[in-house]
Amino acid sequence: MLALLLDGTPRLVTDHPIPARRPGEALIAVRVAGVCDTDLGLVRGYMGYRGVLGHEFVGTVTACDDDAWVGRRVVGDINAGCGACEECRLRGGHHCARRTVLGIAGRDGALAEALVLPTRGLCEVPDAVSDDAAVFAEPLAAALHVADELAGARARAGGARGVAVLGDGKLGLLIALALTALGEAVTLVGRHEAKLAIARARGARALLEADAAGLDRSPVVVEATGTAAGLGRALALTAPRGTLVLKTTVPEPPTIDTSRIVVDEVRVVGSRCGDMARAVEALARGEVDPTPLIAARYPLTEAALALEHAGRRGVLKVLVDVGGAWRDRPPSLRP
Amino acid sequence: MLALLLDGTPRLVTDHPIPARRPGEALIAVRVAGVCDTDLGLVRGYMGYRGVLGHEFVGTVTACDDDAWVGRRVVGDINAGCGACEECRLRGGHHCARRTVLGIAGRDGALAEALVLPTRGLCEVPDAVSDDAAVFAEPLAAALHVADELAGARARAGGARGVAVLGDGKLGLLIALALTALGEAVTLVGRHEAKLAIARARGARALLEADAAGLDRSPVVVEATGTAAGLGRALALTAPRGTLVLKTTVPEPPTIDTSRIVVDEVRVVGSRCGDMARAVEALARGEVDPTPLIAARYPLTEAALALEHAGRRGVLKVLVDVGGAWRDRPPSLRP
Repeated sequence: MLALLLDGTPRLVTDHPIPARRPGEALIAVRVAGVCDTDLGLVRGYMGYRGVLGHEFVGTVTACDDDAWVGRRVVGDINAGCGACEECRLRGGHHCARRTVLGIAGRDGALAEALVLPTRGLCEVPDAVSDDAAVFAEPLAAALHVADELAGARARAGGARGVAVLGDGKLGLLIALALTALGEAVTLVGRHEAKLAIARARGARALLEADAAGLDRSPVVVEATGTAAGLGRALALTAPRGTLVLKTTVPEPPTIDTSRIVVDEVRVVGSRCGDMARAVEALARGEVDPTPLIAARYPLTEAALALEHAGRRGVLKVLVDVGGAWRDRPPSLRP
Repeated sequence: MLALLLDGTPRLVTDHPIPARRPGEALIAVRVAGVCDTDLGLVRGYMGYRGVLGHEFVGTVTACDDDAWVGRRVVGDINAGCGACEECRLRGGHHCARRTVLGIAGRDGALAEALVLPTRGLCEVPDAVSDDAAVFAEPLAAALHVADELAGARARAGGARGVAVLGDGKLGLLIALALTALGEAVTLVGRHEAKLAIARARGARALLEADAAGLDRSPVVVEATGTAAGLGRALALTAPRGTLVLKTTVPEPPTIDTSRIVVDEVRVVGSRCGDMARAVEALARGEVDPTPLIAARYPLTEAALALEHAGRRGVLKVLVDVGGAWRDRPPSLRP
């Protein structure tokens, strides 16, 4: 099948094997995939990943132990835990020590005609949600996961409200949209007026960095700049006993003034993947409309171009249309 | 009065003015003071502090708006908030933006014949608690403050128990003793067999660093090594969704792999000062006996030597006997 393979330099291959489906897993024909900054990080060496790139997708189940899934349009949890350990049984397996992660660790990804994921992590997409919206389910779930930190953060900061989001890239914008939809008083700080306008249109306060110099320290700060330098700026903006939710993963470890963390008793919390069902619900209810973030789209045959485009400064979401790539093949060669 | 003054190089001065007492404050004749690693940090430039050093003390109130306090033996909260802001009114003022901190920021400290602190932060020392134990109230309060993070940490880590404490210096040992007294399963990791033995005698597991290589990742890790390198080691030892309680303040900011914080959704929590009353209670009940940590004692006249001694590698608590230094003076010159 067609796939964008990372093996040194990312390149399109036409003969990648259709992934083998194991018991409990579903084979999914990809309809639309999205490019994430993590994909660009992987290309730069983050995680040492080798394999098919891509972890944002919406697709159609083509094979599954349970026939009821076949033909359904789905998104899926990208973390594929072992399914047997305590972490998998009790908490969904996002931290299973033996997990693979779609397109990130040990499991071929979504920039391909087909992928395989555990059926238990799939989430059906209602008809009301377009492919172009559904492909955002994974990053939107990660954005909504920030909300899981808010109650504890507020209690620790003596009840103070307000969330500052640093970074108007794809993830920062989605976080601003998601938290605003939840009724939070969000201030988004970024570098691109056009992007800030997307958040502003949905009710967030949105400021250029230059205009944010006098911003009060906030009880909750979300760091989504995608840069090593962002953490220091986020820390400086976090109020005493405030919470800094860290979203950026960068290969280059930053240097930070940890004394500030101690003296101000700040809490720095890492936040990764969220609940896909919650994201699909938010899309279905129209609470979050991610489609203004779409900057460009490419067919899978030009996935390498899509990746290059996504890496240009200031570009929002680049989508890759996959559906149909395999429709012209003889049935025996389709995923 | 005699005082150990930091003004470039720390030096003993004999003519430092007795601090002026403002309304709501008490003048306290110091009986015994302790040297903390923070004092050594201040000498190296941390916080840019200039003034009398020292923030660990037990003393006797000699003047106060409320006569009932006069003659009482006390310890006191080193954070002197403005008393008027919301932080001071509702939460004790540890994070008051206008606070001074005894011997650390804007307020002359305890390595002197007398000091001044707000009366509302004083805590009477029961007769059952010796001066040598009471002088540990401040660091013990900071140690017990770690316990305030445990319930939240445990919930986040899915109920897992166990606390690893890194660093067998003064603070690390006190934390190990305090948490063990609270019934926690503590593993202390350090570099000095004699110090580890103090924690082991009170029921903690205590390991030399060389023997801790195979240690399982822990749901709670307390970083009290006093080194910039300690944070990285602590992070490596923190389990997914675990909590790393950060106690070390160092002038040199460390470089850390923040991607690890995000991927493992670790929480890094700064922890500074605690509740003095809780510490005095723990001492009065005999739950924590800090006196095995006493390594040496000096009269106030040799406070500079005490500081030098405390700075030697591996030395635990150095005390400074102050009580009586002013008794030979004419009453008009006594604090």
